[in-house]
Amino acid sequence: MSKITAAIVGYGNIGRYVLDALEAAPDFTIAGIVRRQATPIKGVDYPVVTEITELGKVDVAILCVPSRQIEQYASEILAKGIHTVDSFDIHSDITKVRAHLNDVAQKHGKSAILSAGWDPGSDSVIRALLLAAAPKGITYTNFGPGMSMGHSVAVKAIEGVKDALSVTIPIGTGKHRRMVYVETEQGVNFDTVKNTILNDDYFKNDDTIVEHVDSIDSLKDAGHGVTITRKGVSGKTDNQLFEFDMRINNPALTAQILVSSARAVTKQQPGAYTMIEIPLIDLLYGDRETLIHDLV
Amino acid sequence: MSKITAAIVGYGNIGRYVLDALEAAPDFTIAGIVRRQATPIKGVDYPVVTEITELGKVDVAILCVPSRQIEQYASEILAKGIHTVDSFDIHSDITKVRAHLNDVAQKHGKSAILSAGWDPGSDSVIRALLLAAAPKGITYTNFGPGMSMGHSVAVKAIEGVKDALSVTIPIGTGKHRRMVYVETEQGVNFDTVKNTILNDDYFKNDDTIVEHVDSIDSLKDAGHGVTITRKGVSGKTDNQLFEFDMRINNPALTAQILVSSARAVTKQQPGAYTMIEIPLIDLLYGDRETLIHDLV
Repeated sequence: MSKITAAIVGYGNIGRYVLDALEAAPDFTIAGIVRRQATPIKGVDYPVVTEITELGKVDVAILCVPSRQIEQYASEILAKGIHTVDSFDIHSDITKVRAHLNDVAQKHGKSAILSAGWDPGSDSVIRALLLAAAPKGITYTNFGPGMSMGHSVAVKAIEGVKDALSVTIPIGTGKHRRMVYVETEQGVNFDTVKNTILNDDYFKNDDTIVEHVDSIDSLKDAGHGVTITRKGVSGKTDNQLFEFDMRINNPALTAQILVSSARAVTKQQPGAYTMIEIPLIDLLYGDRETLIHDLV
Repeated sequence: MSKITAAIVGYGNIGRYVLDALEAAPDFTIAGIVRRQATPIKGVDYPVVTEITELGKVDVAILCVPSRQIEQYASEILAKGIHTVDSFDIHSDITKVRAHLNDVAQKHGKSAILSAGWDPGSDSVIRALLLAAAPKGITYTNFGPGMSMGHSVAVKAIEGVKDALSVTIPIGTGKHRRMVYVETEQGVNFDTVKNTILNDDYFKNDDTIVEHVDSIDSLKDAGHGVTITRKGVSGKTDNQLFEFDMRINNPALTAQILVSSARAVTKQQPGAYTMIEIPLIDLLYGDRETLIHDLV
């Protein structure tokens, strides 16, 4: 069996779990890790470089950099003749980024799968399937309970905040409460911090509750979840009820979807795709006939 | 917009609901209905014929005939240069039928989507997605409560049975109880019928309970459901928990999936496909960019 050679670009929270998922996959070889600094990583025996070209032949680059840097990284790496996958999660910009990466990918005869995490990603697949099953109706995506990285970072940036955690709590019909836990610096007035949070763009339109705690670290839990519901109409028959629910380790699932997509990207025609545009069988390891026999 | 011209082949329980779903779809024209007898159908204004060629140009035939007749109907219709979709549901034979239809379809430059109902069908898509999300683990498909057509028909064929209904009850971990309700002919010994059922191949390996009732008709309800669970491992992180649950009108959902697949089949390269082999976006009506924007 010819294995797929993968490079991990960025080694933060997601990158670490991508390494796990690549090691667990029978059909991948790990070329190495691309970071800003080529310093060895404790416990990691793979090459660490600053330029992907230093790793020799790479089939696919798994981008684990912040979303705002994805478009640039993906463009540059596709132009080097390497497939890319990413979990770009700024929903409003997905079609724009996809159009750009599609041009670059086709120009260089390679492929990209973007927004391949859990939302966007596997949740997008569920939403597409439910729309096909009941074309009229309403789908609600209810996140949590779980930590929101983006919202936590926004609170941590506020003056006087030592550490912070924003937890997303589903309150139904796709609406959410934000439970914000704050550890303040010594001598800081908590009420001032609280008011700053409540008036921040990230929070001011949501039901937000801010609480003071002594230790953020003791609250951290990478578990997250989602409940997607649809009540809709199949043909002319209403009251068709669907619910998808999952409770997962957040970075582990994102990383696994990235690795499954890294397998799929090698099988696509040149271009850029979201997960609803690729056959799901391409995500899977194993003999095609056997997979069909076992899954269909 | 150029509409897709569809013919309905077979007009039983599923065929009626397919007509509903085609009428509700904005991008389909109904050419007519193909049956063994070309007698008019009460309340139906479309042509009823015995040969699909009598309907003029048809893009796709939606096969609503019993599973055992699917392979023959699909082969003949593909050979006439018409795409086919079906909800062939004999799980053990899917790869064999797919291989045969793939040959016929490629030979005639057309496409087929087979096993496009809810199981096999949309459930297959869920199982494939969950395998991609957590490659190690166990998936359980728990059906019901709901009527099993196949099992009901098997009981009705037993001598002395006037009418019968077999309801599938989930008892967890993919196992099921069969609740069999029987209306007997006058003067028939119920215990004899009951023993025949308990020793029938359809029932002898299941937890089966047979009950005598005065009216089967008063028990009929087209509602059905499924709960698919997976507990598995993403990368090296275990205890990833997934659950898909739906409560639906059975023939209405099957029919809607068939019609969505009839849309998708027109977009595939020649060949035969199961639902896990086609991009889900192809099932959907509407502008591609808008769908990606709204769903991903």
